[in-house]
Amino acid sequence: MVFVAKIGGSLAEDHSGLVRLCQELIAVSKKYEVVIVPGGARFADTVRYFYDKLSLSDDTAHKMAILAMDQYGFLLKDVMGSAILTHSLEDSLQIAKNRTLPIILPSKIMLSLDPLKHSWGVTSDSISAFIASSLKAEKLILVKDVDGIFTEDPIRKRDTRMLRKISAKRLLKGRTGCVDELLPTILIEKQLKCYVVNGKHPDRIKSILEGKPDIYTEIIP
Amino acid sequence: MVFVAKIGGSLAEDHSGLVRLCQELIAVSKKYEVVIVPGGARFADTVRYFYDKLSLSDDTAHKMAILAMDQYGFLLKDVMGSAILTHSLEDSLQIAKNRTLPIILPSKIMLSLDPLKHSWGVTSDSISAFIASSLKAEKLILVKDVDGIFTEDPIRKRDTRMLRKISAKRLLKGRTGCVDELLPTILIEKQLKCYVVNGKHPDRIKSILEGKPDIYTEIIP
Repeated sequence: MVFVAKIGGSLAEDHSGLVRLCQELIAVSKKYEVVIVPGGARFADTVRYFYDKLSLSDDTAHKMAILAMDQYGFLLKDVMGSAILTHSLEDSLQIAKNRTLPIILPSKIMLSLDPLKHSWGVTSDSISAFIASSLKAEKLILVKDVDGIFTEDPIRKRDTRMLRKISAKRLLKGRTGCVDELLPTILIEKQLKCYVVNGKHPDRIKSILEGKPDIYTEIIP
Repeated sequence: MVFVAKIGGSLAEDHSGLVRLCQELIAVSKKYEVVIVPGGARFADTVRYFYDKLSLSDDTAHKMAILAMDQYGFLLKDVMGSAILTHSLEDSLQIAKNRTLPIILPSKIMLSLDPLKHSWGVTSDSISAFIASSLKAEKLILVKDVDGIFTEDPIRKRDTRMLRKISAKRLLKGRTGCVDELLPTILIEKQLKCYVVNGKHPDRIKSILEGKPDIYTEIIP
């Protein structure tokens, strides 16, 4: 049973928090088959900067943003120490089966297969969903810097509450969230279970792996 | 006779200037065999940010910074239109021979051959020198946002003058410059002629190709 965890880029902004998260991921990979997909982090923001400044095409920005995920993958490997970088879906499964933590560098896979449309509505959320579905993963875990999906943006609105569960269909209708535009469609198409969890509390990831209740949002496909 | 031109990243900060530079490069590539190597641009600054913030290893930062060059390569291709991206030294020569402009994405070459040490003293300057020497290029042209190499940093000191010529040996002794630490050593070892020129005045690049005097600095190996 394989789990894919995408590590959001904003988590790299807090050094000690990132170290704790990486240690927990290494620890759970001794017991569970976990495959890491990196987010785009500040590297993707730099792509966005030039996209706006130089009116780059969506096609170019998409490729540059995928390289940003590779960059963040190298960063995560540096912090994790014993993880293994790989460009290959097959190798990632084998590494996880050996109870070591693989970090997928998605550029080769995504630039050769090119399965998703090129727009800012497709980020590392959708890319990790594509990878999770290709690996026939049991669960996709989106590790972000928020506790889960809220009824409204908690930064902008005070009167909002976190959802323990939400259907991908409902996500499609009203954007309440911190996930990208295409994600709900992929989850429905691939019938993939997805979780949004706060990486600042790494123990909650373990709860998802164990199927135990905790603070996170489950997205039902 | 092949010329390698490395396009400095800071030139991407001025849209219309970059467009003019790219148009000139496309124009000269009809007459001369020119191969483009991208700099690291703001993408490499982002790598530096995380290098400092997370105490990343030089090894990791080196790989991430090489991906930054690929990102800038995609950006340059977007602005240039008719240029051709390639991961291969051999292909770049063939494309240039056909009087089309190749842009080398250096990650595959550099991560597989790994010929240079991993430190911030090795930037896209040295990487382009390595590529120029591998291509047996006649001249390496470092296209930057300054007129050339000065006796002292012109931003910090008023009483400074631009050097028309400087030996790589002298560059080794006193850092007067806007080039990276390893560059002079590579130029001497490979006996490679190198020029520093301002990309905000693209006509000066043509002067170097034609061997005519103009405002630039020649580094004698």
